[in-house]
Amino acid sequence: MNVRARQKQLLESMRGQGLGALLVTHLPNVRYLCGFTGSSGALAVAPGGCAFFTDGRYTGQAHEEVRGARVVITQGPPGIAAARWLRSARARVLGIEGEHLSVAARAALQRALGRAVRLRATAGLVERVRQVKDAAEIAALRRAVLLGSSLFEVAVNALRPGISERSVAAELEYAARRAGADGMSFETIVAAGPRSALPHGVASARLIPRRGFVVLDFGVILAGYCSDMTRTVYLGRPSGEARRMYEAVLGAQQAAISAIRPGVAAGTVDEAARRVLGKAGYGKFFTHSTGHGVGLEIHEAPRLAGGQSDLLAEGMVITVEPGIYVPGRGGVRIEDMVVVTRRGCEVLTPTTKELIALEAVPPTR
Amino acid sequence: MNVRARQKQLLESMRGQGLGALLVTHLPNVRYLCGFTGSSGALAVAPGGCAFFTDGRYTGQAHEEVRGARVVITQGPPGIAAARWLRSARARVLGIEGEHLSVAARAALQRALGRAVRLRATAGLVERVRQVKDAAEIAALRRAVLLGSSLFEVAVNALRPGISERSVAAELEYAARRAGADGMSFETIVAAGPRSALPHGVASARLIPRRGFVVLDFGVILAGYCSDMTRTVYLGRPSGEARRMYEAVLGAQQAAISAIRPGVAAGTVDEAARRVLGKAGYGKFFTHSTGHGVGLEIHEAPRLAGGQSDLLAEGMVITVEPGIYVPGRGGVRIEDMVVVTRRGCEVLTPTTKELIALEAVPPTR
Repeated sequence: MNVRARQKQLLESMRGQGLGALLVTHLPNVRYLCGFTGSSGALAVAPGGCAFFTDGRYTGQAHEEVRGARVVITQGPPGIAAARWLRSARARVLGIEGEHLSVAARAALQRALGRAVRLRATAGLVERVRQVKDAAEIAALRRAVLLGSSLFEVAVNALRPGISERSVAAELEYAARRAGADGMSFETIVAAGPRSALPHGVASARLIPRRGFVVLDFGVILAGYCSDMTRTVYLGRPSGEARRMYEAVLGAQQAAISAIRPGVAAGTVDEAARRVLGKAGYGKFFTHSTGHGVGLEIHEAPRLAGGQSDLLAEGMVITVEPGIYVPGRGGVRIEDMVVVTRRGCEVLTPTTKELIALEAVPPTR
Repeated sequence: MNVRARQKQLLESMRGQGLGALLVTHLPNVRYLCGFTGSSGALAVAPGGCAFFTDGRYTGQAHEEVRGARVVITQGPPGIAAARWLRSARARVLGIEGEHLSVAARAALQRALGRAVRLRATAGLVERVRQVKDAAEIAALRRAVLLGSSLFEVAVNALRPGISERSVAAELEYAARRAGADGMSFETIVAAGPRSALPHGVASARLIPRRGFVVLDFGVILAGYCSDMTRTVYLGRPSGEARRMYEAVLGAQQAAISAIRPGVAAGTVDEAARRVLGKAGYGKFFTHSTGHGVGLEIHEAPRLAGGQSDLLAEGMVITVEPGIYVPGRGGVRIEDMVVVTRRGCEVLTPTTKELIALEAVPPTR
C-alpha cells in the first residue's frame, strides 16, 4: 500500500484549494491514507507530514498498521488531539470533512481550538483521490469480487420453494465467512416472487414461492475491500413476458458497459442503460441510478446517475446495475463490477448472465 | 408499539427547552417515533402533529409501517422536505439532531430554508426518551437476548484448537441467521489465547491455540432490537492465575449487578466493578467502561462509566461487562444484559457464568 503517493495526491488537491491543513476523521479515509483499520482514530494532514492519533486500546495495532504518519496515543478524543497538533504546527485555517463530521463534533472542535483557528468545511477531498484505485486496490477488489461470485452458486443451490428468503441469505453468508470474508458489505438482498419488484428487498422471513423472479444482491468485505453483484433467476418456467423483462435489463446492462471508457461522463453511462429500457417499454420501471463506485466502502464516488458530469478515469471501479420493478409482475436487476481501463473497461464479475430458470426444484413442503 | 406515548414524551422535553419543532433524521430515532424501518426518511415533529417524509422507493413500506404521523412521499431529500413542512407550519426555530446531522447536511438545510428559520442544534432529545424501554421493547429485547444466548452453545461446540477464530464466528452467525436474526448487532469478537488480551479482538484468521482464554462477544438483531453478551472460556486446564483472573472479573460483574437500581448514578455501577478488580490487583487492566444502554442500537444511553451522574431508572436495559486484559497472559470479560426493575434489576441473559474449561477437545490438526 503506497500511502505516500495517496497523501501526495491529497496534498495537491488541498493546495489547489488553498488549504494547508486537513483533519481526516472519516475512518475509511483514515485507513486509505495511513492503513489503520481500527474503530477510533484521526489523521492530521499537512505539507510537513502526517500524524495519526488514536486511544490506548489501539497502541499495538496502530504501530503495526500505520504507514506514512507518526503515531500518537491520546487520552481524549483523537480528532481533537489531531486538530491541536495541526494548530501547534501553525495552521490558522483547518479543513474538516463536512460530509462526515457532525454539527456537535464541529462545535466541540471549535471550543477546543479557540477562536484563533478557523474551521473550513471541505467536501470529497479524500473521496476524489479514492475514486481511482491503485494497483494494490484493484488486486484486492478482484479477490473480493471472486469470493463474492463464488457465493452465487451457493445461493442457487439453496434456493427452493417453501424456505425463507432469510435462510438463503444464511447459507450464502455462512459460505462467505468460511471463505475468509470479514463480513458482508451490505444487508443481503433475497427478494422472491412479488418481492422482486422491491428495488431494495432485504432478505425477509417470507417463504420463497413456486414461481417468479428471485433477485439476489450481495457482497463481501475481504481484507477491507467490498464486492457487489446482483443476479436474477427464475423459479419455474419463465413466461414470454418474463423473458422479455430479463432480456431488456441484460441489454441495458451491456449497453452501459459498452459506454464505459475514460473521459466519458458518468451520466452518459446511465443514459445508455436508460435508452435501452425506454425502447423496450420499461423506462418508467427503472427507478434508480445505474451504478456507483466501490472500494473500501460499498458506495463511493462516482455516481452513475442522470446528469452526472464527472468524467470516468482509468482505474475507477464501478458497479453497473440497471433494474426494472413492475408491481405485480416482479423485478429484474443484473449487476457486475467493472474496472475502467485505458480504452474501455474490464468486467470483473465472472458469473454468467444467461437467464437461469430453476424449473425442476421440488418444494420443501 | 405506542408511538403516540413516545412522541408525547419527546414533545414534553422539547417544550422544556422552548423548542416548537424538531427535525428527526437519525434513522433509529425515526423508527422509534413512527415505526419506519427503511433506509431513507425524516420525521417532522411539532405539537400539532408529526409528518414522515420518504422517497418513492418506500411508498408501500411507509404506508404499511408508519404510525402516528402522516406519510409524505418526496422527490428530493426527505430531510429538506420535512424541514420545509415545519417552516410552513410557522416554525421559526427548528431543532436539529446535532450529534447526527453532518456539517454539510446542516448547511444544505439552511440554504433550503432561507434565513427566516434558525436551526438550533439539540443533543440527545430522542435518545433520552429511548433510554427507558416500554413493555413492547423489553419483550423484544428479551427475545433478542434469548436468541443470542442460544448461540453460545454453538460457539462452544465449534471451538477447537487449529481452526480459525473466524470459522467459529461463521458457525455462530449461521445459527443466528437460521434462527431468524436480521443480522449481527456488531462484528463478532472471537479472541483466543494471546488475542484475548485485546479488549476488541474481532474474529481474525488466526488459528485457535491449544491453551488459554477465548473471549466470545456477540449479539444479534432480532426484529430491530439488539442483544449483546460476552462469555470467556478456557482451552486446556486453567492455571491458578487464570482462575483468579476469571473469579475477579466474575466478582466485579456481580458487584456491578448488585449496585443497579433506580436512582443510582451510572458511575456508581462502574465504581462497584472497579473496586472489586482493584482489590484483586487487576484494577489497571480494566481499561474500558462497565456497560451501556442497548435497544434499537447496540450502544445507547446511559453510559456506565466513571463520573457519569445520569441516574438509572426502571425500564432501562443495560449491559454489565467488566473485563481485564493482561498483556502476555490473556483477557477475561463477562457480560450480561439486565433490565432495571422497581427495586433492583433482572438479569436477562440466562447463560451460565461458571468458568467453562474445554480440556478434552482434540486439535483438528
